[in-house]
Amino acid sequence: MVTLADYSERTRAEVKQVRELVASLHGQLLKWNLVVWTAGNVSQRLRTADLMVIKPSGVRYEYLTPASMVVTDLEGNLVDGSEAPSSDTASHAYIYRNMPGVYGVVHTHSTYATAWAATGQNIPCGLTMMGDEFGGPVPVGPFRLIGSEAIGKGVVETLKDYPRSPAVLMQNHGPFTIGKDAEAAVKAAAMTEEVAHTMWAARQLGKIIEIDQADVDKLNERYQNVYGQH
Amino acid sequence: MVTLADYSERTRAEVKQVRELVASLHGQLLKWNLVVWTAGNVSQRLRTADLMVIKPSGVRYEYLTPASMVVTDLEGNLVDGSEAPSSDTASHAYIYRNMPGVYGVVHTHSTYATAWAATGQNIPCGLTMMGDEFGGPVPVGPFRLIGSEAIGKGVVETLKDYPRSPAVLMQNHGPFTIGKDAEAAVKAAAMTEEVAHTMWAARQLGKIIEIDQADVDKLNERYQNVYGQH
Amino acid sequence: MVTLADYSERTRAEVKQVRELVASLHGQLLKWNLVVWTAGNVSQRLRTADLMVIKPSGVRYEYLTPASMVVTDLEGNLVDGSEAPSSDTASHAYIYRNMPGVYGVVHTHSTYATAWAATGQNIPCGLTMMGDEFGGPVPVGPFRLIGSEAIGKGVVETLKDYPRSPAVLMQNHGPFTIGKDAEAAVKAAAMTEEVAHTMWAARQLGKIIEIDQADVDKLNERYQNVYGQH
Amino acid sequence: MVTLADYSERTRAEVKQVRELVASLHGQLLKWNLVVWTAGNVSQRLRTADLMVIKPSGVRYEYLTPASMVVTDLEGNLVDGSEAPSSDTASHAYIYRNMPGVYGVVHTHSTYATAWAATGQNIPCGLTMMGDEFGGPVPVGPFRLIGSEAIGKGVVETLKDYPRSPAVLMQNHGPFTIGKDAEAAVKAAAMTEEVAHTMWAARQLGKIIEIDQADVDKLNERYQNVYGQH
Repeated sequence: MVTLADYSERTRAEVKQVRELVASLHGQLLKWNLVVWTAGNVSQRLRTADLMVIKPSGVRYEYLTPASMVVTDLEGNLVDGSEAPSSDTASHAYIYRNMPGVYGVVHTHSTYATAWAATGQNIPCGLTMMGDEFGGPVPVGPFRLIGSEAIGKGVVETLKDYPRSPAVLMQNHGPFTIGKDAEAAVKAAAMTEEVAHTMWAARQLGKIIEIDQADVDKLNERYQNVYGQH
Repeated sequence: MVTLADYSERTRAEVKQVRELVASLHGQLLKWNLVVWTAGNVSQRLRTADLMVIKPSGVRYEYLTPASMVVTDLEGNLVDGSEAPSSDTASHAYIYRNMPGVYGVVHTHSTYATAWAATGQNIPCGLTMMGDEFGGPVPVGPFRLIGSEAIGKGVVETLKDYPRSPAVLMQNHGPFTIGKDAEAAVKAAAMTEEVAHTMWAARQLGKIIEIDQADVDKLNERYQNVYGQH
Repeated sequence: MVTLADYSERTRAEVKQVRELVASLHGQLLKWNLVVWTAGNVSQRLRTADLMVIKPSGVRYEYLTPASMVVTDLEGNLVDGSEAPSSDTASHAYIYRNMPGVYGVVHTHSTYATAWAATGQNIPCGLTMMGDEFGGPVPVGPFRLIGSEAIGKGVVETLKDYPRSPAVLMQNHGPFTIGKDAEAAVKAAAMTEEVAHTMWAARQLGKIIEIDQADVDKLNERYQNVYGQH
Repeated sequence: MVTLADYSERTRAEVKQVRELVASLHGQLLKWNLVVWTAGNVSQRLRTADLMVIKPSGVRYEYLTPASMVVTDLEGNLVDGSEAPSSDTASHAYIYRNMPGVYGVVHTHSTYATAWAATGQNIPCGLTMMGDEFGGPVPVGPFRLIGSEAIGKGVVETLKDYPRSPAVLMQNHGPFTIGKDAEAAVKAAAMTEEVAHTMWAARQLGKIIEIDQADVDKLNERYQNVYGQH
């Protein structure tokens, strides 16, 4: 078996840093009420080697430490760590192998996003925040069983039709989000739940006014290129 | 009256440890928003004697300490403790006497689980998380008055028809959950509320897509046998 | 003007203690999400004199201290305190003058209780917890303007028809709750919001099963006389 | 470029104090659950010069410090700060230039207020709290793209028809609130979400009883002139 000792000092230093980052980002899942008990997981792909750092399987959030994070290669094989990796490891790995710009993946069962997923409906684009972050509706992906890379395939296939969305709501399951690093994917998970909740509440009040496609395009263009600190 | 002094040193040591555990798990009920004020209770059966440790009746969560936890036998008779035991003691005891693998019982009135219970409807199985944790719908149990073992009987009878579910929603009352220890029963209580909330929200959006029984069986099989740290 | 110096040392000691208690119970309103910003107030009547201690008007919760609490007589006249008393002081005072067993009053605008109040509907009794705490439905009281004792009159009149309920939902306004002391009234406020939320959620799922009056009576009898530590 | 050094010592002292205030008020947005991740912003206009202090763009709440706050003139030009100002700066500036009594502006995407905005409906006035704080319904403003002063214009135009309301729900976007200082605008943002949530919940229960205009006027008159500490 390959171990971390087979990797460069630079990679071992990156592993240390990413373990701390990924452990700490699980705290953001709790902070924004995206997970219950042990549900949900965050991973980040390394820059210096074809490796990723991911949450261990079935460990309560109180006990997640940098040391408990698991290192695997991009086929999901264990490289370093004393715990078994998340059940969703093969799906995270599939996404990294097939989406070159993606270096962070998050999965939750956040309540309102998952409610949309249980009815098989995309979240309609009725918020400027959705134009900004998703460039349109948040799409539902196919039903897939857990434990293989089948979920990852479903995510990648769905995003071919929704290239501006960082989120897929896997049917009957919950959201998977992607980003340029784990923090961006966690932000996408928080935003997915927020727009799912808001659009859900709007639906109960009557007809949602959907935003014209031309305006969605302008919002997305500005947000992706101008917003934030540059 | 039998007292703790009549038990072995080993049992007295287990009582001490389980009192700490049960007191601390009440904090998890608060953390996951499953209880208000004094509502809700956790118990754990001992391994070394036919005893259980349970919450005292009507004490605010701020004042729950290991020392305030109550020890009873499996008929619900007081064995040790300065407070009166929970009103639900006879029902916890009934469950332990009649379900040999169960060593933890939890009762809450968590909002969305109790909403389903007030309409007498099972929570339909529209989430992979429900396949995993419950192996199908979460069942409603009969209406029962409080204060005798009648509730415990209702729980045991209902679970005969739903052997994979760790939860019963007692009609007009709230969820009772079981587990191999108190922590597992608390986890089941948290998961019951989460799936109750998510399925409730999905119902407001339209038709819930229920998962095929064959897929539910596969999800449950994998989760119960493969998931987590082994 | 009468001042605290005109009262006995025993009363001055009780004022000190009740100021601490009432200030601290406002923290429970926040803990159970019953108030936003400065909305909501708690008072307690004294045992040793016809006085009450109540929240000052329009002060943010962060700045509520025992010293900022206001002492008035049971007509609502200021007796001690550097701040103006709550706008609801005359109504609290009216309740104390007209309900001899009541020594605690709480008012909130908690979300779901107030939603029922805005539609003028009693909360139907579909929960054993409601049988326990309210002995039936939670009643709606009349519409009343703010700033006089008119609200207090509306509370007292409504409770004549619902003598077991510690809560009235004032139409278009929010809940007022009573108790044998301020803590009991705060508990009633927390329970009112919890049952309002649960029954609201149940209503969205279909028909609420209401509990038979005979069973409600048995639940209430047991809870009021047997439950808790005696 | 004009810099802070071109202003009086008194203004530089005010900038220091307002930076602390505005940074700290962003914590209130979190406390009352009005924002997710970096969404939402607070500004305050200065008393001693035509300047304002506003949140930097796209910075996580954990990293907001007084030093990171940005100072601009009332055209939105940068005067002091190492970060780019909020995308909504031009709109805040427009409001200050056109509403002389306004010294605080807040923008959030709080869930229930934004849900009303996504359906283009005013929040009907069914709460005494709304009579108090808003003097009637909370109005919806027009759809506007982000990044220019167009949103600010929409806010100012809408408030001409609703002169007692401190809030406008910009269609498909979210609430903007105003006040005599930033704290008053933050309070208005918290109250907007609370009444949006309560009226949303009431709508699900049936018909909201709207308050007669004459009573709304009396509530508003009393609250604006008598309530609080004077």
